Amino acid sequence: MLPVAVDAMGGDNAPDEIIAGAQKAVDEHGIPVLLVGKPEVLEDLTEIPILPASEVIEMDAEPGSSVRQMKDSSLVRAAEAVRDGAAGSMVSAGNTGATMASALLRMGRIKNIARPAIATLLPSPGTTPTVLLDSGANAECNAEWLLQFGQMGSVFAQHRLGIKNPRVALLSIGEEPGKGSPLIKDSFENFSTAEFNGGSFIGNIEGRDLLTDAADVVVTDGFTGNVALKTIEGTMKILFSAIFEKMTSSEESTAAFQTLGTEFDELIKIFHPDTYGGAMLLGVKGVCIISHGSSGSLAIENAIQVAAEMAESEIVSSLKSSFS
Amino acid sequence: MLPVAVDAMGGDNAPDEIIAGAQKAVDEHGIPVLLVGKPEVLEDLTEIPILPASEVIEMDAEPGSSVRQMKDSSLVRAAEAVRDGAAGSMVSAGNTGATMASALLRMGRIKNIARPAIATLLPSPGTTPTVLLDSGANAECNAEWLLQFGQMGSVFAQHRLGIKNPRVALLSIGEEPGKGSPLIKDSFENFSTAEFNGGSFIGNIEGRDLLTDAADVVVTDGFTGNVALKTIEGTMKILFSAIFEKMTSSEESTAAFQTLGTEFDELIKIFHPDTYGGAMLLGVKGVCIISHGSSGSLAIENAIQVAAEMAESEIVSSLKSSFS
Repeated sequence: MLPVAVDAMGGDNAPDEIIAGAQKAVDEHGIPVLLVGKPEVLEDLTEIPILPASEVIEMDAEPGSSVRQMKDSSLVRAAEAVRDGAAGSMVSAGNTGATMASALLRMGRIKNIARPAIATLLPSPGTTPTVLLDSGANAECNAEWLLQFGQMGSVFAQHRLGIKNPRVALLSIGEEPGKGSPLIKDSFENFSTAEFNGGSFIGNIEGRDLLTDAADVVVTDGFTGNVALKTIEGTMKILFSAIFEKMTSSEESTAAFQTLGTEFDELIKIFHPDTYGGAMLLGVKGVCIISHGSSGSLAIENAIQVAAEMAESEIVSSLKSSFS
Repeated sequence: MLPVAVDAMGGDNAPDEIIAGAQKAVDEHGIPVLLVGKPEVLEDLTEIPILPASEVIEMDAEPGSSVRQMKDSSLVRAAEAVRDGAAGSMVSAGNTGATMASALLRMGRIKNIARPAIATLLPSPGTTPTVLLDSGANAECNAEWLLQFGQMGSVFAQHRLGIKNPRVALLSIGEEPGKGSPLIKDSFENFSTAEFNGGSFIGNIEGRDLLTDAADVVVTDGFTGNVALKTIEGTMKILFSAIFEKMTSSEESTAAFQTLGTEFDELIKIFHPDTYGGAMLLGVKGVCIISHGSSGSLAIENAIQVAAEMAESEIVSSLKSSFS
């Protein structure tokens, strides 16, 4: 198995949590890892093999120009390692825009795919997660791109979730074909007559269906998708905080709440973004997993596992052949 | 005080829950109500004065044509009652599109306002709710409309929440001015130099900030706003269901959970849409409160209170003068 190239310098908790997550992936899952970053920083902290990179693209740097100028940055070197066959996949919790730009510019786009899209898994209690794409790569989209997102999403659901015939839906503001923005109305027509590599189009769904079993793949533009994703994360965070505060407001409630500790921890795990091991950039010629900026070691460990699985599953070959 | 015209026939639980909510508004808050609907149905159920209307616009009917054709429908008659001064405001849990169309066609648009928008309150634990608009009236918007939504939202926050200098923000996918769709980038420029009737523009916020104290008024197009609103509602519903299921999965946890019953009920109340008494259609020459289709008596009771308060507060006059 080729190693997973992990950007050791990217993310709010780099390099410590990144290294800790990588160490777990190596020790507990036997996945080979290549840590990409400054040797002088990393050498003292880990025994994991290092791919040297002297520069770091900061979290708030402008993606395009950073990637073009910082040729020896950890992100660019990680993407090159995948391109050159030194690694089977890459993982970064760094600057999302720069991660996409590095992957796009160094690995290249799959032929006939107009734009790469970010596919994120949303928790859906009691059933398989929902694939949401585009969850932030393209702030403005046209109907042709949305259709390709649906087709890529279907291949992703097959490889990532093992769903043979994924149900593909459009995110709209009503279930009827006539509901939504002009982009969604046009897309509804396109989707109705298109093929989804074994998946099938089931119509529109609404925001309230995202965490349910209503669809396997939900397609939207990157602006709406990112708003929806962050709204879900924000709502969960606020709700869990409010619960903690309320449940520990008296001695009696605190005692009762402690009894429920295990059950509550399991719930948080179901809904926590770290559980899902990052989003995948679909449409580039290599596996690129984008982890939350706030990723801790668990998120990185999970992201490395997903990266290795996706490389092994040959999803990139499947995408290439389904768009050829 | 002029009565509140309540559409007795609209909503999933009409007429029983509508009447029950109206009765509470009359009995417990001393608010005069005019129930609008079929006398033969209503007379046997209540002593509240009735404004006769022989037709009902169904929940899934096409809004524009229904309102034009069904001149004796409860929605159209309620809007006419406000226009003619027989009522000070209207409330409906019926077909949202038809409610908007009735208000727009019968009350008319406020001069210089291009499009009415729906303003919804989002719970923000520990502080005043966040005003989200447009939460569904206009699936496609331009930058001029968005600016007016911000200005209307500021007036609404003053009247509805008592916030003297509301902080107005745009919903985007990054806080920096350059982030977002073309519509949001253009709007950022417009908002930066505009006046907000005492409020001020504070920049972009993201989906995760909607339920926090980050802003008082959040502006977006009706497509994104409706997706965000329904995503919040769906996330809360899924999370609360998962909590209930988990917390009652064993005898021990069920006992502990029962101890927490009151605290939990308070939490649900904070986050439940019924608590906020419906959304307001801003930009028409009258007070129109739009309640959830699934409204029970509590939601209707609260919506009637809000309708009466908004009429008393003379928000329509304030909107007229701030756009004159």
